Amino acid sequence: MPESPIRKLVPLAREAEKRGIEIYHLNIGQPDIPTPQVGMDVLQHIDRKVLEYTNSEGLLSLREKLAAYYHRFGIEVTPDEIIVTTGGSEAVLFAFMACLDQGDEIVVPEPAYANYTAFAISGGAIIRPFLSSIDNDFALPSFEEFEQMITKRTRAILICNPNNPTGHIYSAEEMEHIRQLVKKYDLYLFSDEVYREFCYTDTPHISAMQLKGIEDNVILIDSVSKRYSECGIRIGALVTKNKQVRRDVMKFCQARLCPPLIGQLVAEASMDAPESYMQGVYDEYLARRNYVVEAINAIPGCYTPRPMGAFYTVARLPIDDADKYCAWLLESFEHEGKTIMVAPASGFYSLQNVGRNEVRISYTMNQADLAVAMDLLRRSLAVYPGRTM
Amino acid sequence: MPESPIRKLVPLAREAEKRGIEIYHLNIGQPDIPTPQVGMDVLQHIDRKVLEYTNSEGLLSLREKLAAYYHRFGIEVTPDEIIVTTGGSEAVLFAFMACLDQGDEIVVPEPAYANYTAFAISGGAIIRPFLSSIDNDFALPSFEEFEQMITKRTRAILICNPNNPTGHIYSAEEMEHIRQLVKKYDLYLFSDEVYREFCYTDTPHISAMQLKGIEDNVILIDSVSKRYSECGIRIGALVTKNKQVRRDVMKFCQARLCPPLIGQLVAEASMDAPESYMQGVYDEYLARRNYVVEAINAIPGCYTPRPMGAFYTVARLPIDDADKYCAWLLESFEHEGKTIMVAPASGFYSLQNVGRNEVRISYTMNQADLAVAMDLLRRSLAVYPGRTM
Repeated sequence: MPESPIRKLVPLAREAEKRGIEIYHLNIGQPDIPTPQVGMDVLQHIDRKVLEYTNSEGLLSLREKLAAYYHRFGIEVTPDEIIVTTGGSEAVLFAFMACLDQGDEIVVPEPAYANYTAFAISGGAIIRPFLSSIDNDFALPSFEEFEQMITKRTRAILICNPNNPTGHIYSAEEMEHIRQLVKKYDLYLFSDEVYREFCYTDTPHISAMQLKGIEDNVILIDSVSKRYSECGIRIGALVTKNKQVRRDVMKFCQARLCPPLIGQLVAEASMDAPESYMQGVYDEYLARRNYVVEAINAIPGCYTPRPMGAFYTVARLPIDDADKYCAWLLESFEHEGKTIMVAPASGFYSLQNVGRNEVRISYTMNQADLAVAMDLLRRSLAVYPGRTM
Repeated sequence: MPESPIRKLVPLAREAEKRGIEIYHLNIGQPDIPTPQVGMDVLQHIDRKVLEYTNSEGLLSLREKLAAYYHRFGIEVTPDEIIVTTGGSEAVLFAFMACLDQGDEIVVPEPAYANYTAFAISGGAIIRPFLSSIDNDFALPSFEEFEQMITKRTRAILICNPNNPTGHIYSAEEMEHIRQLVKKYDLYLFSDEVYREFCYTDTPHISAMQLKGIEDNVILIDSVSKRYSECGIRIGALVTKNKQVRRDVMKFCQARLCPPLIGQLVAEASMDAPESYMQGVYDEYLARRNYVVEAINAIPGCYTPRPMGAFYTVARLPIDDADKYCAWLLESFEHEGKTIMVAPASGFYSLQNVGRNEVRISYTMNQADLAVAMDLLRRSLAVYPGRTM
């Protein structure tokens, strides 16, 4: 498995910190938002003598609460159709392992979350990327172009919606194209919807679980990590109406025994977070998105589309090579003892020589810090030796 | 992946419970022992606003504490040589994925922990079992017989020491045989030592990490689950001096982001459990082992060796087929509204037609309950229609 570009930066960041440089992390998906108090409180009241295994599919009370949660988003599933996983990561891995055989292909619009490739390798499957472009706000290509990606070995389409890293939300038309292809070729549709609650436009978020006529093809990947800012508890879910897939996934679940007990308790409690908490989180991200997009586009030579959801944006910078620029930021740049760490977009493309001048910027830090970070971005680009214009 | 025999019993157990039958679970590895108070207390004092990701290799403070813990058992490793995993299960899975290619073979003495096979399938590898027999106290066969198992495709030997399900602890001579084979054929040695602290004989437990001359071949699998009775927190470890293996394992670790944060905090605190806690746990299991072995061997037609460690024993019963007997216990037997659930040994053998009349019995329940369970075992065998003598 190749090492991801961002991982190559980690030792450079450590070196920079040793030199006393303060790093503003525009590279990570760890929100700074507090975990809901109801989630934290549950830790104080764990009335158990033994921190024991749960059942492999996760606590029924948690799955019941998840079913009620999905209902509020127009997704109708029963607790039996939900399998609790150790983070959304495990849901992706088990979906691939259960549904795909050695050499099977998954069609994925790129740029895409880098770890899908790692999980595909683990499952013996192959990611077949196709390009969505920054010049087109990362929309899907035409139906015909999309269809040309389907080969005899294609077994699945994978989307992340809202998208990490682009923030794109798939439109009704795009979802209909996906539905038609899934139906026509009897493919699995893996739909990673962990950013469901972070949609900043009037465009409604359409879940893959809502598409008609492909109910047995859809595997929903979910996680409580982002919406309750509790990435560390490692609680996700795999949701599907397909009984056979659930049976196969359960074999992997049984082998790993159970998802984390305490995380399940925290996740269950977090779903009782008051509306004001969720609204506060939403408002905060919306303000950050607006700020970051304006700040980036105000820097000469920079461009980012207006991301519709999630908390990332892909930006095109006036640079020769984002891998080099991101390393240079840590090795050679500083302003008043500060620098930024940014993820080169190369980690989100398996296609060669694409997006070489793009980076992913997360807005998971508060607005005061974001302002400093945007200033550092501007200043760094003004002096970067590989600047292209 | 085939369904394990014990899993087939789960619906039967549910049905029995619906009929109001009380089930004594001799089938599970979930200790009833309380988690150490220091581990529970940490939950009250989590001074964090955000339950965030940790680093992928696990908290340094936890790895430092693990290194000090291993030192007390004569295992000399640095925190850098320890990767924290989501349970021992993930350590097994990542060890297989990092070290083995499609079709590589792992030689494993059977009976063996059933989930190794599931992880081998996940990693594309093949388990090559060889028999250790109840008539020989589950000792390894002779060096020559062992060596005959090694083929061109053999890449690893896997042992569980102390052994689940047999309770066998590998002797100095057996460990020397393993060392020689590993060295001669340059194999990996995966050594699952999660029951390290449960050794009831004078025979010292020899860790694979202590074998000379094969330091780069050994991958230690560990977990805090059993020793602190905290299976639900899902914290284990993969320990190896082999840098390349650590690098490869880390790629899988990075893809799954991090092990559970709260579990790491609980595990770290649990290592401060007082000596009196560990001694109490040890004494309790020793007394249970002695009781269970005597009780089983006192039943006409039953035989179990005296397990040297862990908290299981494999027993031979006067029955036609353990799968049938174990199903019958749940479907057709009861005494005063009670029955037992027992794991057929078939789940621990991939070899065909071996151990058909054997079961695994765990002694993870208190002695009063064990006494009831042993009485139920005796009564059930007296009336089981498939009794053979």
